Amino acid sequence: MITSLLGTSFIGYSRSSGNTAAGHGIQPGTGTVLEPTYLAASATEVERALALASAAFPVYSKLSGKVRAGFLRAIATEIESVVDDIVERGILETALAEPRLRGETGRTVGQLRMFAGLIVEGSWVDARIDRAQPDRQPIPKVDLRSMLRPLGPVAVFCASNFPLAYSVAGGDTASALAAGCPVVVIAHSSHPGTAEIIAEAVIRAAHLTGMPEGVFSVLYGGGRTVGQMVVKHPAIQAVGFTGSRAGGTALMESAAKRAQPIPVYAEMSSVNPIVILPGALARGEEVLAEAFFASFTLGVGQFCTNPGLVFLPVGVGEKFLGKLKSLTEASVAGTLLNASICEAFTASTAAITGVEGVETLARSVSVAGLNQALPVVFEVSIADFLKHETLQGEMFGPASLIVRGTVAEIEAVIPTLEGQLTASIHATQEELAVKTSLVDALQNRVGRLIFNGFPTGVEVCSSMVHGGPFPSTSDGRSTSVGTMAIFRFCRPVAWQSFPDSALPAELRDANPLEIKRTETN
Amino acid sequence: MITSLLGTSFIGYSRSSGNTAAGHGIQPGTGTVLEPTYLAASATEVERALALASAAFPVYSKLSGKVRAGFLRAIATEIESVVDDIVERGILETALAEPRLRGETGRTVGQLRMFAGLIVEGSWVDARIDRAQPDRQPIPKVDLRSMLRPLGPVAVFCASNFPLAYSVAGGDTASALAAGCPVVVIAHSSHPGTAEIIAEAVIRAAHLTGMPEGVFSVLYGGGRTVGQMVVKHPAIQAVGFTGSRAGGTALMESAAKRAQPIPVYAEMSSVNPIVILPGALARGEEVLAEAFFASFTLGVGQFCTNPGLVFLPVGVGEKFLGKLKSLTEASVAGTLLNASICEAFTASTAAITGVEGVETLARSVSVAGLNQALPVVFEVSIADFLKHETLQGEMFGPASLIVRGTVAEIEAVIPTLEGQLTASIHATQEELAVKTSLVDALQNRVGRLIFNGFPTGVEVCSSMVHGGPFPSTSDGRSTSVGTMAIFRFCRPVAWQSFPDSALPAELRDANPLEIKRTETN
Repeated sequence: MITSLLGTSFIGYSRSSGNTAAGHGIQPGTGTVLEPTYLAASATEVERALALASAAFPVYSKLSGKVRAGFLRAIATEIESVVDDIVERGILETALAEPRLRGETGRTVGQLRMFAGLIVEGSWVDARIDRAQPDRQPIPKVDLRSMLRPLGPVAVFCASNFPLAYSVAGGDTASALAAGCPVVVIAHSSHPGTAEIIAEAVIRAAHLTGMPEGVFSVLYGGGRTVGQMVVKHPAIQAVGFTGSRAGGTALMESAAKRAQPIPVYAEMSSVNPIVILPGALARGEEVLAEAFFASFTLGVGQFCTNPGLVFLPVGVGEKFLGKLKSLTEASVAGTLLNASICEAFTASTAAITGVEGVETLARSVSVAGLNQALPVVFEVSIADFLKHETLQGEMFGPASLIVRGTVAEIEAVIPTLEGQLTASIHATQEELAVKTSLVDALQNRVGRLIFNGFPTGVEVCSSMVHGGPFPSTSDGRSTSVGTMAIFRFCRPVAWQSFPDSALPAELRDANPLEIKRTETN
Repeated sequence: MITSLLGTSFIGYSRSSGNTAAGHGIQPGTGTVLEPTYLAASATEVERALALASAAFPVYSKLSGKVRAGFLRAIATEIESVVDDIVERGILETALAEPRLRGETGRTVGQLRMFAGLIVEGSWVDARIDRAQPDRQPIPKVDLRSMLRPLGPVAVFCASNFPLAYSVAGGDTASALAAGCPVVVIAHSSHPGTAEIIAEAVIRAAHLTGMPEGVFSVLYGGGRTVGQMVVKHPAIQAVGFTGSRAGGTALMESAAKRAQPIPVYAEMSSVNPIVILPGALARGEEVLAEAFFASFTLGVGQFCTNPGLVFLPVGVGEKFLGKLKSLTEASVAGTLLNASICEAFTASTAAITGVEGVETLARSVSVAGLNQALPVVFEVSIADFLKHETLQGEMFGPASLIVRGTVAEIEAVIPTLEGQLTASIHATQEELAVKTSLVDALQNRVGRLIFNGFPTGVEVCSSMVHGGPFPSTSDGRSTSVGTMAIFRFCRPVAWQSFPDSALPAELRDANPLEIKRTETN
């Protein structure tokens, strides 16, 4: 399978001929260049993929939830059939270990099947029926019915840090396809071969289930060129992105400047603050240090939910810090996903040591090889933290900053923090009950609030909120993980006085799909 | 009551001293200047209103739905107690007739009570509960629960064409207050006295129900100055606006350029196309003409849902046009809301006559007084319509454009139309069943699709969608009318592993509010 990689884009059911070389997969740990050469889609090919997506929309968006679910399930099955290829190529391109790649494949197919289940059940469309009252005074009431409908073709940008679960057939693709939107994927340069294997699986599934051509395309050539071309194109009606703040805000700007502005769902940067209250330390400082260490170094610290900021009261926590120091110093170097992440990690962890009052609490004493990161923990007083806004910045990788202050000072700083995906509070139940204003302030800054736990490990379920106020995401009204993600690609539409036979099945009198609906009269 | 008008802003529970004169109410039909002088809020006063709104948010957003509903119902009662004052001042400022003003007051209090009912019932928060599975393999599942929470203080811009239902205590204010967001209103210069009477009623209700100061403020001084100051302020988390496309897009731009971009819900312009198929004419051309005439001249054509574009097949409809001509010519002039609406109507109806191929089918033969509009209907071939994009523009007032072409040409033009609030199709059920691609194309351009009816007359109910693709609104994922409007001011928040007692009531195990929830396990 892997020997058959072509290095070209998927333009609907065709493969592009490509033109200029866009790059290769590269083994991060060795710098080895992997075959084949990946070719950027030409402007004509991009145009063709978008025209096919536009043409597919009226067909695909009218397929029943059951039929679309068949497509999603077929994608899952096709991905499972090539899991060994995914692992083989994925290890080479990402330096992620086999268990992680198998686990992430499992999450990816799990997400596809979760959305399949959601749209087979069908109630997610929020069907609302207000029946006519012809005799109402002073004026008759018309029959009005509404439900959610898909927005149109969606552009999905692959994430470097989730080569499967937030890439070609990841969360954004699954939720957009589930909603009824064709998807145009912009592949990430960091794992082009893994992307091609997955794209082939999706295309096989589309053929097997008779989907209209253009329901799915994958473009190589990079976010700044091909990606911007796609986002600016009138066919595209929404954008899903996971990546850097610079990349996300550039897409927001392009989308806002279009003749028709469109929504951008960009998941960008978050330091996921942790607040430790004294009672949590009393339960066992070393255990807490071990759990925190495991969280901020998980996956070489390359998670959006990595805890990069810890508020620890002054005068307590010496054993916590001692254990954290010994764990960090004894930790081994980990290979990052690619050279640019390594450069950014090196730069951000170097820059922070130049900030007034910042001390290096501990750094791994191991030796870093090519594109490797050494886990590191910094410490600063809350007074210095408040003086330097840059200390709120993300250091993407295995690094964290401990901020020391009184509990009152910690409480005062929370409302000034930037928007975050998550915040965690470690405390006793009694402290939690007393510190309601602290909890409220944390809630106001985040999408997910965690008690006595750590933010890494994002459960894919109905109640997950993986989104938060800017700049953690571009739009805190939305989540990229969990079933609520389907809402980002929809809008409500109402039908007034339509005959029953001309209504969508979801809104017909007999409720043939047997979905939950809100009915008046 | 009316003699006590002060002409100053409401800064929380205080009245501003104001500074520069911002203007007066003016009788549109006579040009008479009405007392008192309205004073623009100073920058310091704006800052104070926003600081009060920020301070009110953590308190107000935590009040139960029942308590917030008490506030909304008290506002309704207080407004009803001054309905005669509203009518007296409203007639002077807006030239709208007494029945319209009484009816719109009824709609306004009806909206407030509808949202009160929604939040007393409480299920709107979309509570989701995924219980822990400590024994799950390979890793335990955490307890996760989510619900919608308010965004924060909201800026609401009053509409000139709905001095009650989309102004100080109108739909945006009602939905934002219901969601748990403090509201800062920017009054419209067209009806400052009516705004003051309503604002006094809201403040009385806030006092009576013990609301925190800052939950509600009203600022005079205009959208371009005071309004922009409010939208750019970091305290504001969302914007509601009804008005011109220029005004709405200016707010979108300001909101996108903020350090923290925020959502703008701007309802801007729509020509609400009507497609007439031959079968509809066969049922009675003159009756159809009467209904269309009544719709496009209702309220002197000053509704967002005014039908300003009619697609009529060539070779049919002579009686329809004949009746429309005689009705229009015999119609009387109507006084518009203010001088700038009159200027814009005069300019747009003059400009269209200069466009290639546009003929004036009929114009009222009555004489227009000060700020009055004469109903007018234009006609153009579809070929010329396609050549001139300006013909899709809104002529706000009693004007409409009939576009003539073959049914095939009409079907081809629909997908090229700009986004609209509504579209209407007049046809037989047989035609509707055959023309599915036409119906799909219309649905794709609008928020509400109407069969054999007209778009004016917006029912306030659970299934209403008063929103549509850009440029009819800034954000087609939302509605400004009906219960779904509450969603625009919310975002989901998840709580992980929280003890039951620290969760919001909506998410506690015992479900003390007895709301509908989505529970797993």
